[in-house]
Amino acid sequence: MTFAAHVLTLYPGMFPGPLGTSLAGRGLGSAWTLTATNIRDYATDKHKSVDDTPAGGGAGMVLRADVLAAAIDGAPAELPRIAFTPRGKPLTQARVRELAAGPGVVLLCGRFEGFDERIFEARGIEEVSIGDFVLSGGEVAAMVLLDACVRLLPGVMGAPSSGDDESFETGLLEYPHYTRPVIWEGRTIPEVLRSGDHARIAAWRKSMAESDTRSRRPDLWERHEGVRVQPASGARHEKEE
Amino acid sequence: MTFAAHVLTLYPGMFPGPLGTSLAGRGLGSAWTLTATNIRDYATDKHKSVDDTPAGGGAGMVLRADVLAAAIDGAPAELPRIAFTPRGKPLTQARVRELAAGPGVVLLCGRFEGFDERIFEARGIEEVSIGDFVLSGGEVAAMVLLDACVRLLPGVMGAPSSGDDESFETGLLEYPHYTRPVIWEGRTIPEVLRSGDHARIAAWRKSMAESDTRSRRPDLWERHEGVRVQPASGARHEKEE
Repeated sequence: MTFAAHVLTLYPGMFPGPLGTSLAGRGLGSAWTLTATNIRDYATDKHKSVDDTPAGGGAGMVLRADVLAAAIDGAPAELPRIAFTPRGKPLTQARVRELAAGPGVVLLCGRFEGFDERIFEARGIEEVSIGDFVLSGGEVAAMVLLDACVRLLPGVMGAPSSGDDESFETGLLEYPHYTRPVIWEGRTIPEVLRSGDHARIAAWRKSMAESDTRSRRPDLWERHEGVRVQPASGARHEKEE
Repeated sequence: MTFAAHVLTLYPGMFPGPLGTSLAGRGLGSAWTLTATNIRDYATDKHKSVDDTPAGGGAGMVLRADVLAAAIDGAPAELPRIAFTPRGKPLTQARVRELAAGPGVVLLCGRFEGFDERIFEARGIEEVSIGDFVLSGGEVAAMVLLDACVRLLPGVMGAPSSGDDESFETGLLEYPHYTRPVIWEGRTIPEVLRSGDHARIAAWRKSMAESDTRSRRPDLWERHEGVRVQPASGARHEKEE
């Protein structure tokens, strides 16, 4: 099945951009397809306006609900709809995995002050934030989400096992990596990794993943510990052990 | 002062990509400059290798510390250095603001399994994560960070006031926006926003920012409340009131 990405944007020329090269680029046209549509094509007045001043006053311009709705109604109705906004739910690897397992996604990219709030409920749009910072528009956020999804599609990343240990897949940060040279500027690769003892290496990596998560991301660690003590989450727990 | 962005990547052709258009693109060459350098140019063997197998075994390839160090040493030494990795500290608007107020940044984009861990301490590199998901490489993360910084540079966004109310600038999510048409598909813009009563509008927006943050992002709300009760943070507190 081909993953169908439909991007609604005022800058369709930005796409595929970085997604046309490397890993994502090699799968484009086979593992996934990308359609970038200009929201402005759905404007109805002669000036092709897509935005208007904020009700109640204030700086900037707000994207009109009627124009956004027309653009959304022009995209495949069966795909989940996501709009990028700092007011949205933080994107997680679990949500990326769900989306990548589905038929595709419609991505709505804002500009200016944002979207008319009425659009979200009226068109069943999930509000997503990629982080606690403000972008000039949703386009680079859409690229982030698509890059994260596309690398999970069958055939894109090569061996399917190569993602299992990665950060967030187990609820932990990944352990640190090392490669040759063994000694570099006086810094040596940890002895255990050169021991050839697979059980010791696995134990060291697990312990590093745990201690790094605890010190670097106490928020993730707390959630991870929460999962471990709840018997209802047994399936995930077992995978982690 | 021009903000100097130096990106070290295996895919320099991805840049400026989306950053060459729209807001960021208009400031490119004046408010900010972008130099994308191929890490591979710093490989020393005849195959131009940049990576090697992970010490201790496992899937994927790891970027070599010696090659990365040479690439970093080729970039301006006075700029802060950031590498994108899911093991990094989550990017915040406060960090974006600090970086945008400085002379620029060197951004190190990984691929494959990641970086040889020794590089971070050896070259004083800040590890940054843009979110709890996994990308095929750091390039789209670099675009996110640069987009967030560039829009804050003087002259790029127009009126400097237009960012003050935005999400995260006050520790809260931004209030919802509305624009014409007043009635759309039976949905009406909230009455208060059509009242012309500026005090009532400001109070409504503040109350919406607070209640939306509380319900959508209890983590942000908790931090915001933490700031409010600490007298040491008085300066921020006053601004928010």
